[in-house]
Amino acid sequence: MSLKITHEKRSFGPAQREVEVGDITLLATDKPMRLDSGAEISHFPMAFRTYGTLNKDKSNAILICHGLTGDQYMLETHPVTGKPGWWEQMAGKGKPLDTDKYFLICPNVLGGCLGSFGPKEINPNTQQPYNLDFPVITIRDTVRAQKALMDAMGIEILYAVVGGSMGGMQALEWLASYPEKVQRLVALATASRHTAQNIAFHEIGRQAIMADPDWQQGNYLNKGTFPSKGLSVSRMTAHVTYLSDDALARKFGRELQDRDRFSYGFEADFQVESYLRYQGMSFVDRFDPNSYLYITRAMDYFDLEADYGSLAQAFGAFKGSALMVSFSSDWLFPTGEAKRVVQALAGCGADVRFMEIDSDKGHDAFLLDEPELFSAVKGFIAE
Amino acid sequence: MSLKITHEKRSFGPAQREVEVGDITLLATDKPMRLDSGAEISHFPMAFRTYGTLNKDKSNAILICHGLTGDQYMLETHPVTGKPGWWEQMAGKGKPLDTDKYFLICPNVLGGCLGSFGPKEINPNTQQPYNLDFPVITIRDTVRAQKALMDAMGIEILYAVVGGSMGGMQALEWLASYPEKVQRLVALATASRHTAQNIAFHEIGRQAIMADPDWQQGNYLNKGTFPSKGLSVSRMTAHVTYLSDDALARKFGRELQDRDRFSYGFEADFQVESYLRYQGMSFVDRFDPNSYLYITRAMDYFDLEADYGSLAQAFGAFKGSALMVSFSSDWLFPTGEAKRVVQALAGCGADVRFMEIDSDKGHDAFLLDEPELFSAVKGFIAE
Repeated sequence: MSLKITHEKRSFGPAQREVEVGDITLLATDKPMRLDSGAEISHFPMAFRTYGTLNKDKSNAILICHGLTGDQYMLETHPVTGKPGWWEQMAGKGKPLDTDKYFLICPNVLGGCLGSFGPKEINPNTQQPYNLDFPVITIRDTVRAQKALMDAMGIEILYAVVGGSMGGMQALEWLASYPEKVQRLVALATASRHTAQNIAFHEIGRQAIMADPDWQQGNYLNKGTFPSKGLSVSRMTAHVTYLSDDALARKFGRELQDRDRFSYGFEADFQVESYLRYQGMSFVDRFDPNSYLYITRAMDYFDLEADYGSLAQAFGAFKGSALMVSFSSDWLFPTGEAKRVVQALAGCGADVRFMEIDSDKGHDAFLLDEPELFSAVKGFIAE
Repeated sequence: MSLKITHEKRSFGPAQREVEVGDITLLATDKPMRLDSGAEISHFPMAFRTYGTLNKDKSNAILICHGLTGDQYMLETHPVTGKPGWWEQMAGKGKPLDTDKYFLICPNVLGGCLGSFGPKEINPNTQQPYNLDFPVITIRDTVRAQKALMDAMGIEILYAVVGGSMGGMQALEWLASYPEKVQRLVALATASRHTAQNIAFHEIGRQAIMADPDWQQGNYLNKGTFPSKGLSVSRMTAHVTYLSDDALARKFGRELQDRDRFSYGFEADFQVESYLRYQGMSFVDRFDPNSYLYITRAMDYFDLEADYGSLAQAFGAFKGSALMVSFSSDWLFPTGEAKRVVQALAGCGADVRFMEIDSDKGHDAFLLDEPELFSAVKGFIAE
């Protein structure tokens, strides 16, 4: 690789704790990249991590697209949270995405907060964070940036593009934007568009952040504040949508937390309350509130049918093979939405496989221990 | 009726606009009423409205139990919003709950904000609103207060108890608390317990309110503030749970609001965003934030199985007939939860009818134009 790569410090959470993130490279250094909004960006940073080794003819590269609050740290300790990578069960030595065979590239999305070009990056013109001057980006913009990264790496053809949820949206966008560059698609728990209910939950999350006076109209970094409470409520809302009713009943039911009887007050009497509060609070330490606004917006805007006229037109030029997986209890990206994509791909003559995995784990199932998923991906990728 | 009834002024919304509410009577005037929490209350106000005429032998009284944000104004213009009553389609002259035949009594729940004993009522000891000194109440406490109201009215036997959602919880509690006083039960879109997912969404709503600095630890009325933003986010969250994915898709889909293309910003581009923002904002003008905390808590605590040892023990003494209705797209109170109640009632030898109405309207279906529901209730009530 001829990329110039740096590792840089970025700050996280209310205390703005400094952490080194990387690898970071600058893209659009020759000419600006035009975004869907019409704005142009250049010399913008893209953070990514790679795992495995790129072979000589550069034919074993798999692009991994992360979800809304994911990042490039898929197979290693997260520099902010200290937790294991988010997809250690799916990828690694001997895993379905085998790092002995494939070269995995996992970039942080545009609008992200782990080093890629996002609202907390410093605007060179003002030497201040962009905040809300950051341009609204789309899933297609992120895919454009990913393509620029592939070009910079000299990778002509992707052995596969893989992603779940918002990562699946990116993977589907690759088929539409660069159909001849992708040999295989693996899209999990995803859809070709964000539904009204999806948009509704995102709007609640955004309103919760913006309702917090410490958000400061987006300028919290300059003002030395941090909208912890708003971001926490936002995360709690999203988190409930990632789990199924059954999963919540199985994990928590109506069990009480550290008590035998009700407090008759507003403490976290129930385990599920305590769990949600914890999810909200821990998110605050690792994620940027403005990033959350921008990335949720990108998902809301995603609609391949509207962008390309029809799904048939979106997928018409794709000649590779595709694996689409949904989960029976995923009410955020239900099987019906997955089937629309599968039917369109099949209608275009693509070699498409579809499975709905019976699971009570809800949307998050694609990140969890699902043996059926692993064996399906392993078989498909090895073909 | 020998009740002493008053009409009094209460204040609503950020501007604390004064509105006359009623009818209000004082209960527990002879001796205190003991709440589930152990607290005792006396001389507490209960607001209600009645429709139709109580017959001579007082045998035609139907108690109507309202939902979380409902109130006593079921068949007349709401004094705060100016909108029609919330159940005009179900009840009135010639309607399933026919005011030519039945005497409908609709009380505002304990913890409410339309005149019944709730956190914004004035504490006679301090001459200040109770705020968080208000005792946590339960569904059973509200039913105790309703029973006290029936006693005060001299009504020995209820021809029926009718309610949907939280109103259905009250109706089911009547069967457990006062089985010999109820001849017929109509319980719609409800359950014998709040599930982990139900609790989770309520906890998000409470956290949204409490995250608003204008909530002032519950003392906003004394401080001259009002947590409008928090209450609005809270309402938005709840509102999404009342609608089905399909209903949102049918009503709004991905349609844009007053524009042809995306704003590439955080305006309400989509109709569903605009609709939700409106729902949030209009709720602020009519509902008390602390009331919202208390009433959601009462629902969370509701669990007949835990309270009575088993559903069989809860319903064992009921000898009347019951109609239980669920709606196919209601994911908040799904059919499975309704069936648990039906099976328990049937197991106790009660005369129980159950129907799942095929509807895409979600939880709110019980409040909407559902001809199948109306004919089922009409037939059952007339039997």
